[in-house]
Amino acid sequence: MSAKESINPTIDETHNPNLRSWVESANQKDTDFPIQNLPVGVFRRRNELSPRLGVAIGDQILDLAAVGEVGLLAELSEDLQAACGASNLNSMMALGRESALLLRRQISQLLRYNSDSSPPESKILLPISEAQLLLPASIGDYTDFYASIFHATNVGKLFRPDNPLLPNYKYIPVAYHGRASSIVASGTPIRRPVGQSKRPEESVPSFAASKLLDYEVEVGLFVGAGNALGESITIDRAEDHIFGLCLVNDWSARDIQAWEYQPLGPFLGKSFATTISPWVVTLDALAPFRCAAMKRNSDDPAPLAYLACSTNSQFGGINLTVEVLLHSVQMREMGIEPLPISRASFTQMYWTIAQMVTHHTSNGCNLRSGDLLASGTVSGADEGSQGSLLEITRRGEQPIQLPSGETRSFLADGDEVILRGYCEKEGYVKIGFGECRGKIFSY
Amino acid sequence: MSAKESINPTIDETHNPNLRSWVESANQKDTDFPIQNLPVGVFRRRNELSPRLGVAIGDQILDLAAVGEVGLLAELSEDLQAACGASNLNSMMALGRESALLLRRQISQLLRYNSDSSPPESKILLPISEAQLLLPASIGDYTDFYASIFHATNVGKLFRPDNPLLPNYKYIPVAYHGRASSIVASGTPIRRPVGQSKRPEESVPSFAASKLLDYEVEVGLFVGAGNALGESITIDRAEDHIFGLCLVNDWSARDIQAWEYQPLGPFLGKSFATTISPWVVTLDALAPFRCAAMKRNSDDPAPLAYLACSTNSQFGGINLTVEVLLHSVQMREMGIEPLPISRASFTQMYWTIAQMVTHHTSNGCNLRSGDLLASGTVSGADEGSQGSLLEITRRGEQPIQLPSGETRSFLADGDEVILRGYCEKEGYVKIGFGECRGKIFSY
Repeated sequence: MSAKESINPTIDETHNPNLRSWVESANQKDTDFPIQNLPVGVFRRRNELSPRLGVAIGDQILDLAAVGEVGLLAELSEDLQAACGASNLNSMMALGRESALLLRRQISQLLRYNSDSSPPESKILLPISEAQLLLPASIGDYTDFYASIFHATNVGKLFRPDNPLLPNYKYIPVAYHGRASSIVASGTPIRRPVGQSKRPEESVPSFAASKLLDYEVEVGLFVGAGNALGESITIDRAEDHIFGLCLVNDWSARDIQAWEYQPLGPFLGKSFATTISPWVVTLDALAPFRCAAMKRNSDDPAPLAYLACSTNSQFGGINLTVEVLLHSVQMREMGIEPLPISRASFTQMYWTIAQMVTHHTSNGCNLRSGDLLASGTVSGADEGSQGSLLEITRRGEQPIQLPSGETRSFLADGDEVILRGYCEKEGYVKIGFGECRGKIFSY
Repeated sequence: MSAKESINPTIDETHNPNLRSWVESANQKDTDFPIQNLPVGVFRRRNELSPRLGVAIGDQILDLAAVGEVGLLAELSEDLQAACGASNLNSMMALGRESALLLRRQISQLLRYNSDSSPPESKILLPISEAQLLLPASIGDYTDFYASIFHATNVGKLFRPDNPLLPNYKYIPVAYHGRASSIVASGTPIRRPVGQSKRPEESVPSFAASKLLDYEVEVGLFVGAGNALGESITIDRAEDHIFGLCLVNDWSARDIQAWEYQPLGPFLGKSFATTISPWVVTLDALAPFRCAAMKRNSDDPAPLAYLACSTNSQFGGINLTVEVLLHSVQMREMGIEPLPISRASFTQMYWTIAQMVTHHTSNGCNLRSGDLLASGTVSGADEGSQGSLLEITRRGEQPIQLPSGETRSFLADGDEVILRGYCEKEGYVKIGFGECRGKIFSY
């Protein structure tokens, strides 16, 4: 049955909590990258030009091209072996979920501790600290959703107090096209944008550096196998087209955005930069953490038929926690650790990742391997779970206190925003997403 | 002076109206592609897989790879020669305006009739009718502007009778990110999209084939040399980054668009398909047709400083006429020619192409070679100059009459929309853009 195949997540031996790796750092309790995770990414060795594919394991990278060269991927298909030697993940993504799963099983075997055999030669490993982590894929199109009803309501209250949630929200996984060219890897410095803005009390706009610079914590999905133009992806097959997930910081200049966004939506208030975490956690790695989609209220409408299937309701959610930390120049100078400022659960999203894919292609729009779909800001119902400063500070009216004695309504130059994400569940090993970092500078 | 260099268009020998080509069809009065035009594109020969670059001349294509192979491009730089042998225009675009101009001069020489020498061998030519015309470039990002104040006002009146033009319009070249994956070359059949819509009198939305399918006639700009992330392109240098122009049909499902577009802008109502004409008319070819930017009313605000320069006011406009023709199944069966339904001038755009580029990069957003910027619907002030059925039929309330006896409020299955564009000016040879065609079908 197709519905069962696609959205019913499969837990197998690769998720066994008793697995240990011969890479010792992968067995430590606090690592994001135990052998049960195996996220893929793109890195560059020092003094080398060509990007290479790798799998994060503990504090190391397993170099997939090197693994192939020593013959350890020989059991995989030729296409998949070739994809392991590519300079980005696009061709691996294009091979679809089944190939990703075969690779995962092979790599899990390879990295497993086995007292009877010695580990493979060490040239297939490289410390993460010695690599430059790059964008995982060449991103053709980037789409940003708006899937948290709490975020939509919080923001709506600020801009339209009488009418916070628009009438289409509970029917449509609302989204807009974002800018692909300005997506950067974690660690890339973020220039404070200049642009037009106009406060309500001003009669004409001015052109200046943004004063209301913000972040948004989101979860990104990389498209695996694409679809042809004119063909839709049904809800029961949608997850077959999702390769894996990452963290996304959708930097937002609120003053530019507020003045420009009518009637065609956000543009320059967003397009100056979007940061993503470098490791793509495959959908297969997330199998143990799948859960029911968010329960709708009894007076909420049921999703229209094309967005509904029973396995999506049962397993469409992901028990993924996202956290935001802030680190100012002064905090760094005083030796103070980054301050956690929010924590939210991806289980509280009104729309599932499958619904995003199906809605996106429902008009025949083609998704291509390597396309990025972001969830929109992950905000929860409770205090402390709002995924942007706009929400936390009520558009700057309730600044947050930093342990350095400073306050923040919006981001200051030198501030670093750090996103983290992890999945945990009784009986399974916790897996992490690594970090998504960006520090603000001005010319 | 940089301002003079970049926006003051240079008329040279390639624009001489007395030039004739040894390609006879290029000398005929009604051709879109006289020797003064020389637009570039990508085509595939029958029974060949690889796309090749070509220049349209009369009813023929000059095959640039073949021209290079017989040594006729040897005077050009190695980079430019290599770009002529590529499979799309991206690397030629990346070389910038100066290279495009050098190539234009070389090709003009090569195609010029000279009674003292015989034409080069014929294997460098191919009839356009024997080629498949493809997308000219790999389009990284696609941005759609809203630069006609008449279009913005017409549409605004339909949706917001009290408040047709929003307060930001006269300050900001409003734009949104479009979908790059679903841009197709002229002639590609367009599937009528399905999607959610809700009429005001309905209490819940339904999911069905769009009933209000429309076109929008636009002008597209291909980005030549790009800019680095974090750096802006000043208005006086903006045209250095524009390679050339094409026609764009921004197909629009008005019912899907109306229900989905709040608050983040158009998405599935547009992303099912965008058609572009296959030939890119270079900015240098347009030099004789440059004109003053649209004159603002005395009570309109002056553009903010970053969007203003004197040469943009003097030469920022383009005297380009765009036409839309409609051809129904019944008209074709009755042997009736396509019906012209609108004609508008690109001189009536509130924002110039230089202002679009400068605004787009003002926040540091990077443009990449091959990116497409579309102008938004080209509608003029007068009756007969509205660039969409939404405007012409007043949202369907005043259907147009077809000579077959049919009426149209919006597009019917089998309807073909044909866009044409041309520049003409006393003392110069008229040049054309070729056609941008698309025919609607349903499953």
